[in-house]
Amino acid sequence: MELTRKRKVGRPPLVENRRKMILDTAARLFGKVGYEKCSMQDISNATNVSKGTLYHYFKTKQEIYDAIFINTLKNMIDFVGNAVDISADARTQMIQYFRAHANYFETHYWDFNATMLGVAGVSSTEMRAEAIELRDRYEAILRDIINRGIESGQFRSGEPGMTARAALSLLNWMPRWYRPNGSKSADDVAAHFAELLLDGVVAD
Amino acid sequence: MELTRKRKVGRPPLVENRRKMILDTAARLFGKVGYEKCSMQDISNATNVSKGTLYHYFKTKQEIYDAIFINTLKNMIDFVGNAVDISADARTQMIQYFRAHANYFETHYWDFNATMLGVAGVSSTEMRAEAIELRDRYEAILRDIINRGIESGQFRSGEPGMTARAALSLLNWMPRWYRPNGSKSADDVAAHFAELLLDGVVAD
Repeated sequence: MELTRKRKVGRPPLVENRRKMILDTAARLFGKVGYEKCSMQDISNATNVSKGTLYHYFKTKQEIYDAIFINTLKNMIDFVGNAVDISADARTQMIQYFRAHANYFETHYWDFNATMLGVAGVSSTEMRAEAIELRDRYEAILRDIINRGIESGQFRSGEPGMTARAALSLLNWMPRWYRPNGSKSADDVAAHFAELLLDGVVAD
Repeated sequence: MELTRKRKVGRPPLVENRRKMILDTAARLFGKVGYEKCSMQDISNATNVSKGTLYHYFKTKQEIYDAIFINTLKNMIDFVGNAVDISADARTQMIQYFRAHANYFETHYWDFNATMLGVAGVSSTEMRAEAIELRDRYEAILRDIINRGIESGQFRSGEPGMTARAALSLLNWMPRWYRPNGSKSADDVAAHFAELLLDGVVAD
């Protein structure tokens, strides 16, 4: 029998919502203006949150950057991880990974653009260790797909690490050239890229 | 019969050498410290060229960035263009393009890192037009290879534009993860990536 009522964990909703609003707005500013050119004052102006209150949530601009980056990685692990059907073959899973990555990118366009500096942009040793661990977990989903493909004989053996590098290059370069609302959706591009990597350019 | 002796064209060697030294040193600074964080004073200190003399060569930091970027593109058009054997088949040419690109990158590592901002980092409209034209000429070498591959039947038809995008993604992401003097040379990586794109991951 439970005698004490458990305290709710985590931050109350109002605080959480404002925190999220600050991060969303800052991401858009970092993506549009550039991280370096953007000050805490600019973020205060854009969010309509006084500098005093802003500093209550984040002590530095760097903390905001770190939070956007860490959030993005966590969400992608969930979103892309769930999109990969555990019972599918490796070829199908690779396409699912590519498409889910691109869909997350398109629906979180500014977070993605804000974090183009990647792990290199994360400052504190502690946060960097967390970021690297999350990035590795995200990439491990892809590496597992490639390894299962090789074990099942569906993929050529060879250098699975290089295959993963190639796959991530195709995805990671997208923010540099892809603009939403163009002739192709990010989903179409990703599906096409996955098939190119799977089947190659050379005719049979 | 020639009556007047032709004047030598271009800048005298001393001026040209100093200009090149400034660009090389600035590229290294931009690549290591970041463009935004680097001042004309830092460049003056690193080059041992007084600020007065430095401003004689380049009026702004932006002009230095533009010169590095434009030079890199011009040199790559020459270097990679010459590396692609006009009489080879498209498959061989694709590998040649990849390897030459990677070799240029490895031997001009800091210029490459300094110009990661790409065309977006070039400021004046005039310079940006020149940069875009040069970038298009560089990419046209690749597009020609892909088109010849399709015409000859060696490559699958489909979407040559997307194949070019994929090829450039593999190459353009390299500066973000590749470090010289690791277990693989840039040349090895590029050859492997080209073969992945050509032949695909899926076993026959």
